[in-house]
Amino acid sequence: MLSLRTVQWKEGKVIMVNQRKLPHELVFAEFDEVTQVANAIRTMVVRGAPAIGAAAALGLALAARRSRALTRDELLLDLRRAEKLLEETRPTAVNLTWALTRILSKAESYTGSVEGLKKAVLEEALTITDEDLSVNKQIVEHGSLLIEDGDVVLTHCNAGVLATVGYGTAQGVILQAHRQGKNIKVYPTCTAPLFQGARITMFELMREGVEAYLIADTAAGHVIRNQGVTKVLVGADRILGDGTTYNKIGTYQLAVLAARHGVPFYVVAPTSTVDMITKREAVVIEERPSTEVTRIGDISIAPRGAKAYNPAFDETPPELITAIVTEKGVIEPPFRQNLEKMMSGRPTGGEMDS
Amino acid sequence: MLSLRTVQWKEGKVIMVNQRKLPHELVFAEFDEVTQVANAIRTMVVRGAPAIGAAAALGLALAARRSRALTRDELLLDLRRAEKLLEETRPTAVNLTWALTRILSKAESYTGSVEGLKKAVLEEALTITDEDLSVNKQIVEHGSLLIEDGDVVLTHCNAGVLATVGYGTAQGVILQAHRQGKNIKVYPTCTAPLFQGARITMFELMREGVEAYLIADTAAGHVIRNQGVTKVLVGADRILGDGTTYNKIGTYQLAVLAARHGVPFYVVAPTSTVDMITKREAVVIEERPSTEVTRIGDISIAPRGAKAYNPAFDETPPELITAIVTEKGVIEPPFRQNLEKMMSGRPTGGEMDS
Repeated sequence: MLSLRTVQWKEGKVIMVNQRKLPHELVFAEFDEVTQVANAIRTMVVRGAPAIGAAAALGLALAARRSRALTRDELLLDLRRAEKLLEETRPTAVNLTWALTRILSKAESYTGSVEGLKKAVLEEALTITDEDLSVNKQIVEHGSLLIEDGDVVLTHCNAGVLATVGYGTAQGVILQAHRQGKNIKVYPTCTAPLFQGARITMFELMREGVEAYLIADTAAGHVIRNQGVTKVLVGADRILGDGTTYNKIGTYQLAVLAARHGVPFYVVAPTSTVDMITKREAVVIEERPSTEVTRIGDISIAPRGAKAYNPAFDETPPELITAIVTEKGVIEPPFRQNLEKMMSGRPTGGEMDS
Repeated sequence: MLSLRTVQWKEGKVIMVNQRKLPHELVFAEFDEVTQVANAIRTMVVRGAPAIGAAAALGLALAARRSRALTRDELLLDLRRAEKLLEETRPTAVNLTWALTRILSKAESYTGSVEGLKKAVLEEALTITDEDLSVNKQIVEHGSLLIEDGDVVLTHCNAGVLATVGYGTAQGVILQAHRQGKNIKVYPTCTAPLFQGARITMFELMREGVEAYLIADTAAGHVIRNQGVTKVLVGADRILGDGTTYNKIGTYQLAVLAARHGVPFYVVAPTSTVDMITKREAVVIEERPSTEVTRIGDISIAPRGAKAYNPAFDETPPELITAIVTEKGVIEPPFRQNLEKMMSGRPTGGEMDS
């Protein structure tokens, strides 16, 4: 595997792959200011729940570094302002809030000097990015055990290397199975309206030589019914305590189709995506601008003035999910019971947003 | 309603709306030669099963007009050559074959002069285009009775005015219900990979002031589940004797989602789309080029060299269809029995391809 770090800290700056330029250019962008990082998250220069979490963590480290605060309290105020700015960028993915809350609670319990606090914030942010790497490494190991030689996998959006700091989740599993020498065929959906499947997942799969056939989002049902699909793998932006999964728009309909055709449907995500507290009715499904649907790049595909309804995520109920693959192993139904068991094994509690 | 004839004959030429230019320009293209018409069908300058049927019929009339045949037999040879050329353009829609067979059988039974035969071919072609108008007028009347005030309709691709000679089928029903003063809200899917929903259905709905919100194909499941959709309406390219329906790729998954949420799913099409003879296994699902999926206009959305699987149609089994709306009325299950009853009432038999 060619090494690729989606999000990293280098000499006081945040370096991220500009995912809007993919697949035609692999460009790294540099960020000096937390406002730039927030903007990069909002405009999806960086996307994918774990990558967003890491970007936000390093964004806070930038805010700390650039702060002119003279006291610990002033610095905390700057950090809380930066946290608010970052948190408001994308409402659905839980990793964002999870990473911010984790750093802020570390900062608030720190009692030393301003410089020491700045250092502590950076250290926690770097720990979060490093953990993402090691967590994903475990996820793809667990997940790859589910993939058999000869599998035909349908996958959606991008939860690959570029959706994380490295290794990936759902597509990371596919890549890992391929590296293990398993003979697999993959159908990635284009994933309208922003085409992360066509642009990013195809880029990752082709880069490692996986046999892949891109399909229009309209073709998923036909492909599941007629092309011998044996597994559907998706990532997640938030998983509730009962297993209800929020992921890229289009996930729900794939789960319905998989269930209809008896094809196992796997959600692959780190436990930082699990939210044991929030209830379904409190989860906000982000609605993004009409123009994402009516325009593709510089091309308008709809009449001038056309309105669009553009939810960025959807909700997949637990009864449609075969298993959830995390760094702690593969969880099967009943999800509430098994998620509670798994999450209570965590070193610290209360990290979830509510 | 503003009048719009998608396909027409004018002073020895075929005039068609160039649907590739929509929604930004409403341009009419002129055709002198049957080869140009065949190319227009293949490249989807004209699309929509009934419009293709009419275009092919008028294409044969062009072939007759331009033929230098001196005898009836020579002219029949030219017509058969033109028929073959036209028939090979698109394999799934049955109207194409239906229109060609109808004209050829008329031509073969004609016993008069070469000039008389040319005139007979043109007359039959014009009858086919005129019938499409009157048939669709009846379809939208029958269909509009199914639409109630307050309905929220999800629809796919374009089976509207521009998919036919005029009036339309599935979206024709929506337009007619709107003209009747019914308060309806419509969610058209973009319909990747060629975006006929975004480009053409939105054009038609906005042109008549229907409240419409375009959605990405990925959002259909979420919208059916959460946005109060009360009906799904689609067209058809071929309907078998048992009700099995071939229509634009993506239709099948909409039918599965509608069934899951108890939303009635209606297929709207003329009886010229019904094929009582062919069996499921003999229907060819057209596969179109990879580049339709990997490129949008001049923009490549996938890495260079990406392969795509691009079926243009899919198959919806009868158990997912609530009713089929035709010019002869609304047919409910059991479809075989009720389609047989309806089709046997036709003035002539044996018009279907096999």
